[in-house]
Amino acid sequence: MTASQTLPAVLDRIDHDLDSSLDRLFALLRIQSVSTDPAYAAHCRTAAEHVAGDLRSLGFETSVRPTAGHPVVIGKSGNGQAGKAPRVLFYGHYDVQPVDPLDLWQTPPFEPRIETLDGGRKIIVARGACDDKGQAMTFVEACRAFKAVTGKLPLDITMMIEGEEECGSKNLFGFVRENAAEFKRDLALVCDTGMWDAQTPSITTSLRGLVYEEVRLTCADRDLHSGLFGGAARNPIHVLAAVLAAMHKPDGSVAIPAFYQGVRELPADIKADLSGLGLTAEKFLGPIGLKIPAGEQDRMLIEQISTRPTAEVNGIIAGYTGEGAKTVIPGKAMAKVSFRLVGAQDPEKIRAAFRDFVRARVPSDCSVEFGNFTSAPAFDVAFDNPALTKARAALADEWGKKAVTVGAGGSIPIVGDFKSVLGMDTLMVGFALDDDRVHSPNEKFDLKCFHKGIRSWARILAALAG
Amino acid sequence: MTASQTLPAVLDRIDHDLDSSLDRLFALLRIQSVSTDPAYAAHCRTAAEHVAGDLRSLGFETSVRPTAGHPVVIGKSGNGQAGKAPRVLFYGHYDVQPVDPLDLWQTPPFEPRIETLDGGRKIIVARGACDDKGQAMTFVEACRAFKAVTGKLPLDITMMIEGEEECGSKNLFGFVRENAAEFKRDLALVCDTGMWDAQTPSITTSLRGLVYEEVRLTCADRDLHSGLFGGAARNPIHVLAAVLAAMHKPDGSVAIPAFYQGVRELPADIKADLSGLGLTAEKFLGPIGLKIPAGEQDRMLIEQISTRPTAEVNGIIAGYTGEGAKTVIPGKAMAKVSFRLVGAQDPEKIRAAFRDFVRARVPSDCSVEFGNFTSAPAFDVAFDNPALTKARAALADEWGKKAVTVGAGGSIPIVGDFKSVLGMDTLMVGFALDDDRVHSPNEKFDLKCFHKGIRSWARILAALAG
Repeated sequence: MTASQTLPAVLDRIDHDLDSSLDRLFALLRIQSVSTDPAYAAHCRTAAEHVAGDLRSLGFETSVRPTAGHPVVIGKSGNGQAGKAPRVLFYGHYDVQPVDPLDLWQTPPFEPRIETLDGGRKIIVARGACDDKGQAMTFVEACRAFKAVTGKLPLDITMMIEGEEECGSKNLFGFVRENAAEFKRDLALVCDTGMWDAQTPSITTSLRGLVYEEVRLTCADRDLHSGLFGGAARNPIHVLAAVLAAMHKPDGSVAIPAFYQGVRELPADIKADLSGLGLTAEKFLGPIGLKIPAGEQDRMLIEQISTRPTAEVNGIIAGYTGEGAKTVIPGKAMAKVSFRLVGAQDPEKIRAAFRDFVRARVPSDCSVEFGNFTSAPAFDVAFDNPALTKARAALADEWGKKAVTVGAGGSIPIVGDFKSVLGMDTLMVGFALDDDRVHSPNEKFDLKCFHKGIRSWARILAALAG
Repeated sequence: MTASQTLPAVLDRIDHDLDSSLDRLFALLRIQSVSTDPAYAAHCRTAAEHVAGDLRSLGFETSVRPTAGHPVVIGKSGNGQAGKAPRVLFYGHYDVQPVDPLDLWQTPPFEPRIETLDGGRKIIVARGACDDKGQAMTFVEACRAFKAVTGKLPLDITMMIEGEEECGSKNLFGFVRENAAEFKRDLALVCDTGMWDAQTPSITTSLRGLVYEEVRLTCADRDLHSGLFGGAARNPIHVLAAVLAAMHKPDGSVAIPAFYQGVRELPADIKADLSGLGLTAEKFLGPIGLKIPAGEQDRMLIEQISTRPTAEVNGIIAGYTGEGAKTVIPGKAMAKVSFRLVGAQDPEKIRAAFRDFVRARVPSDCSVEFGNFTSAPAFDVAFDNPALTKARAALADEWGKKAVTVGAGGSIPIVGDFKSVLGMDTLMVGFALDDDRVHSPNEKFDLKCFHKGIRSWARILAALAG
């Protein structure tokens, strides 16, 4: 029997086993695996061992691999198939965010519970309920159902469950690079993103890249009295303001030459899908006190925040900024500037173009230095990737609604490395909702999202197995 | 004996007492009387009491008069003469500018010291060494020498030493208005300006006025993650940079509507005099590391810094300004902006025009608030004032070179009120040099300027006494 033929039995098993699935999730949620605080290192180790033991019970060959920080749990199903089914790498994380402020939690963060809201909606409340224990377990439970029904997993699956995502995954990069041959598969799967809304499944198909620059401008070699020098001495705040103001055109686009090189236009059907989502300024900007989208005027708001590149000044300081008045013309001024990149924009070309743009606006008797903090290219999955097509269909079958493909405005750095180091695309399928209070007190995960998340992964695995 | 007859003995006394004069100046320099920062209020009080005590020792009837801010020290000699000698009001200030950035000071700012430069030139280094403790003490020490030699002061002298000049003298205006009858004299004397160069004494006959504004811009009601919101959320740094960049036209002139209303053209002969001084960019800007005058391109540099109005951004801060990278879009941004005024420019009209200029550039879903710190109209004194003629001759006697009359780029706000409220002109005679680093780290005052400054005041007092 093919995986698709066994799918009805697998879904049935998932439905009947839900209480046990919850028990297993609760056991994981009780482990206080806060990664950023060294005081919780033993708990992180416990969580890793717990996950490894669970994967072992599903037939994975598991190991708890050391890093300079918390360990990475690796599990290998080893049942490579001869056919065309892709070998997949599933990535998730067992670590969670700190729980402070503790007094805002209605119940203790590591004592998971089910709460029934008005209208009968049930939620799982605990730190990590959603991010990422609850989400990662949707995939594990889907594997378990296949194992129970068919005696094996439907694909060659490698699990990579790390313990430092909430503090920057800094040791995972080296781990992946050093073991590239071991982890190179045909496709990566991640369950750490959200749904468009409670009814609409989503696949995140792009992540914006990042270039971060610091601009340090020097005019006079000292701070000056504006009474004595005002009018003749170049003011670095004026120079910097002119540079920063010139970065955007009146239509909201970025004015740096060749900035849009490598930016791809969305296919018409994808653009229509995005338009159909109806994301309004009132809905998106209203909660933060704004009304008018600030980006490119000829783009939808949803494009501005996900599929279009940006230039933002993240910080600026110069002169006197304390209380009261000081009539100083400063000698120096500093700004931090970052760019969110999309498509094939080249981070180093953007960096160079920005520096040229600044230098061209600095008077010849002044000087500018740059600080280079970070860069990461954008990541995207081709819209005609066959795995993406299969996953979309599988999600539509489960949720009774077309799955949308969305771009995420921020980055998940390891996904970029899966592409650049391991040469594989990543499908990011997640079931978080906007009100899940991820990283905040009273984090929750809808029971429906957990349940249908497991069923969604079962359908996706069956579809990929072909 | 007349004051002129006793002058040689007074000058001799000054020469022999120089070390003691320095000791007294150092005692005042050690007091951390930073007026703009409330944390230093007690030090300002200490400085006021110190000055009062010193004046009392010279026979002044002194008082430390309260204001809503730091107190004003008043001293009255009381020896009004029957003759034609003018009764004078000497104005100075005991407060100093903040010392930041502290790490650029070679020695602690409130530990005064004498440094000998190459060639034997000696300088006094400390915050306030020049502005205005050192300068004000030249007058006090001249009075002391008269007192020592003749047993009395040569004129009816009222001292007014305030503590808020560096933060706009805002409480002094009301104090002078409320006590106008008490302080109305024939002439005011101020020692808070500079020499044309180290050899050429100067009397400042005009002062630029000042308007100081703080701009506080709010976009979103919180700081935002640039990954989630970047592209759609208005960035207040972008808005502020656009406002500040728009303040000047490419030709260096100020772009605020009606800004130049009330600015007078100089008479041709005065303009020729200024041109004759031959102030080059190399000479004026070279010492501070610059080459290109930044002001109105169709004006001489000396006009840009003295007889033309300006707009300067004195400080700006927003977002993340610490080390490293943080991808924040701040909710707020702040800038401090000041205008130097000349002729009949109306400070309140300039303030209103600036606010309109800003508001017109703030998106409708953002908001702006303004902080009003200070304003003062420009001031000038008639060239045929007889006291001016006497003072010029006295300075020529001391320095062996004709004293020039110049316009000062900075403002001493109260001088405008001496004219408008008390109906008296002010002679501004000062001994600061262009390299004194006033308001900057390592502020200094040449020992020669201090010494000959005392002698200059002795000569001026003798000349005015007739």
